[in-house]
Amino acid sequence: MPNPTACLLVIGNEVLSGRTQDLNIKFLANGLGAIGIPLREVRVIPDVAKTIVTTLNECRARFDHVFTTGGIGPTHDDITSECVSAAFGVPWEPHPEAWARMEKHYQPGEFNAARQRMATMPRGATLIDNPVSIAPGFTIGNVHVMAGVPRIMQAMFAGLASTLDGGTPVSSRAVHAAGLLEGNVAAGLGAIQQRYPDLDLGSYPYYRASGNGVALVAKGVDGAAVDACITEVTALVREMGQEPVQGEPAV
Amino acid sequence: MPNPTACLLVIGNEVLSGRTQDLNIKFLANGLGAIGIPLREVRVIPDVAKTIVTTLNECRARFDHVFTTGGIGPTHDDITSECVSAAFGVPWEPHPEAWARMEKHYQPGEFNAARQRMATMPRGATLIDNPVSIAPGFTIGNVHVMAGVPRIMQAMFAGLASTLDGGTPVSSRAVHAAGLLEGNVAAGLGAIQQRYPDLDLGSYPYYRASGNGVALVAKGVDGAAVDACITEVTALVREMGQEPVQGEPAV
Repeated sequence: MPNPTACLLVIGNEVLSGRTQDLNIKFLANGLGAIGIPLREVRVIPDVAKTIVTTLNECRARFDHVFTTGGIGPTHDDITSECVSAAFGVPWEPHPEAWARMEKHYQPGEFNAARQRMATMPRGATLIDNPVSIAPGFTIGNVHVMAGVPRIMQAMFAGLASTLDGGTPVSSRAVHAAGLLEGNVAAGLGAIQQRYPDLDLGSYPYYRASGNGVALVAKGVDGAAVDACITEVTALVREMGQEPVQGEPAV
Repeated sequence: MPNPTACLLVIGNEVLSGRTQDLNIKFLANGLGAIGIPLREVRVIPDVAKTIVTTLNECRARFDHVFTTGGIGPTHDDITSECVSAAFGVPWEPHPEAWARMEKHYQPGEFNAARQRMATMPRGATLIDNPVSIAPGFTIGNVHVMAGVPRIMQAMFAGLASTLDGGTPVSSRAVHAAGLLEGNVAAGLGAIQQRYPDLDLGSYPYYRASGNGVALVAKGVDGAAVDACITEVTALVREMGQEPVQGEPAV
């Protein structure tokens, strides 16, 4: 059975305006690969209700899972939760368990209208725990709604991941060589890729103070094929007159 | 006249697999904001021909400009250029000027078939100079095709940006305060946003060794409105009993 697929929606004006460097794509790409739900597409979209609803409905139909980050805080631009309700066509209403957790967490009088919005969710949502700052994320259907702040998102994903039915983890191996040029290795690399059509064989130039080179990376769910492919790639690098080093180059 | 809009396609398995931390979104978001062509959406997609063609055609119809990064190197997984040809329905053929530049750059015999692919472009493309590694990007219609390696992409964009008809640059101002909580400032902030409907007023918690707090950021093409908005936000922070500091918090 093929692995289930994932799409990530990064929701927030702050990424599109260049104010914030996104760190969630890479984290989730690795985390999802590790549980065999490879990330197939990412969309970064603004805090605009129509865009969020349309994008959600398109992506939840196309992918097995949709993960969202951002837009579930207490301020006026945090509209992800109500947009998910609109996309699913269900009421947006207080979630009793989320409400109870937050009411307990805050001092009397501090669980105000803004914070109550964070305990308001699509009907039928199940909670994603937030061990960092209490206010939960949630899952509805195949959509998993998480915070945008990386350390909160990461804590949410750790709990969520254990509840998902994943597939075969994606295996990855790399070999690199200083002085290698992509234009010289390209033909041989293409021939190897043709022999391993189910793997992704990628070629990535790097520029380091210690020298420039190319890293060659094989990924796929068949670990034995990944090993065999990298053995061939290693031999190719040696044929090109460069010294292959296993793994990615040091940063 | 409203500003023209931009969409960015980040093309590459390496970002979706978590192998590579994307740095191009933030750079282009800032660069495009500065020339008044704000970034409205980003899609990260794999090196899969059908996905690239479909996404390109959808996005070039919806946005004034589409920028792409990645997939224009010499290896088998570099298929962006031929996919752009397919999307526009034009032949993919040697570009005389790109060919001449690359032929001149390489030693005799080194301008091989793999590298010749980098001088092969959709008919009608105009070149985007590459002062770093020669092989040019290109523009066809409203699509601008650039390298994925950040330092090459940045050099390409510097030249490209001066050729684009931009709009009013996006102005941005921030104020931040340690000890501020989003849930306390949310109501007042929402009221201010309503008075400045053409601005994006965002609220971003930060977590620093020096202390936690919230940064409040106003962005828009009307610089005077941005100033007036931040003046109101500054007063609000003071009302909440916190000391407002102009600008973003230090990293």
